[in-house]
Amino acid sequence: MQEKGRLIVISGPSGAGKSTVVFKAIRDRQDFCFSTSVTTRAPRPGEVDGREYFFIDRERYDQMVLQDELLEHAEYVSNGYGTPRFFVEQKLSEGMNVVLDIEIQGARQVREKMPEAVLVFVIPPSMEELRRRLVGRGTDSPEAIEGRLLRAREEYAEADFYDYLIVNDDADEAAADFSAIVRAEHLRAQDRLYLLK
Amino acid sequence: MQEKGRLIVISGPSGAGKSTVVFKAIRDRQDFCFSTSVTTRAPRPGEVDGREYFFIDRERYDQMVLQDELLEHAEYVSNGYGTPRFFVEQKLSEGMNVVLDIEIQGARQVREKMPEAVLVFVIPPSMEELRRRLVGRGTDSPEAIEGRLLRAREEYAEADFYDYLIVNDDADEAAADFSAIVRAEHLRAQDRLYLLK
Repeated sequence: MQEKGRLIVISGPSGAGKSTVVFKAIRDRQDFCFSTSVTTRAPRPGEVDGREYFFIDRERYDQMVLQDELLEHAEYVSNGYGTPRFFVEQKLSEGMNVVLDIEIQGARQVREKMPEAVLVFVIPPSMEELRRRLVGRGTDSPEAIEGRLLRAREEYAEADFYDYLIVNDDADEAAADFSAIVRAEHLRAQDRLYLLK
Repeated sequence: MQEKGRLIVISGPSGAGKSTVVFKAIRDRQDFCFSTSVTTRAPRPGEVDGREYFFIDRERYDQMVLQDELLEHAEYVSNGYGTPRFFVEQKLSEGMNVVLDIEIQGARQVREKMPEAVLVFVIPPSMEELRRRLVGRGTDSPEAIEGRLLRAREEYAEADFYDYLIVNDDADEAAADFSAIVRAEHLRAQDRLYLLK
């Protein structure tokens, strides 16, 4: 029996280090992939359909929304973006774990449409540390940094529906946390009752 | 904030290798202990009160049962055995994970009295392998082995309320499964919401 993969949603404030944690955890692993989104925006030079995004027109996008073919979707700068259910289901059925890096609103939609998804929220050890990291990146103005910190606070207040909470103090430890979560989720008895037959 | 430990109940058929898996997983770990049971049976030479068991008289035992001071209890050969809630709660509050190696009936009682306990069921890769292991131990008669296999089948049929199912094919992998489960359980968001304050 081919065991199904898990859909793993990962969220957290900008600067928490989500990507680092996930990349450390899944590097050298053949059983993980990232979800590929659909978008109505035009491909940029070098972007390949099915790699960066599935590029679709607005008509198809609206149809996917209406027919519940997207696990979550949102509009940014007049373009639609979404996570196609067919892609995720296909990968899961192949035994791949699918990682989906999205914001809280998207995670809430996924929870509703695919309750068995595993929701992981990554936070920095403190707001002071988050500020230090954002300053250290050197990409944001002081005002933008204050905005991000405010946004992080707002996110925290909404994040109580996640399944797991990782504090990214040390990235290796946080990656080990992530790996342990995925490993444990694969051991859930409710999905393995066939082993007791 | 001192994080509480987890009560981890481990069960599985005789010959599945539960003890080996747990010992491999928790050796060198200071944050694990085994639960110490109460019993009405007399101490044997060399047994120390509070180490092998807490030795208590029948009156005290019956009182503990009546006052719901035992997380689970059972009678064997006219003696009462049980897991004292005070001991477990004390260790958990010190941040220790408490491991409780008991049978399914006891696990069911624990689930009821302490729903947050983590229930892990360990099985061998197959009944054929279980038979091989029991024969290899050389401690049971052929009849006793058939009895154990029958009992294992019965246990499987009742084990659907466990949280996790570990297949002990390779003991190191199974120990890593056990460790991942405990690590993931410590990351559950519902127990860490204070981190979002």
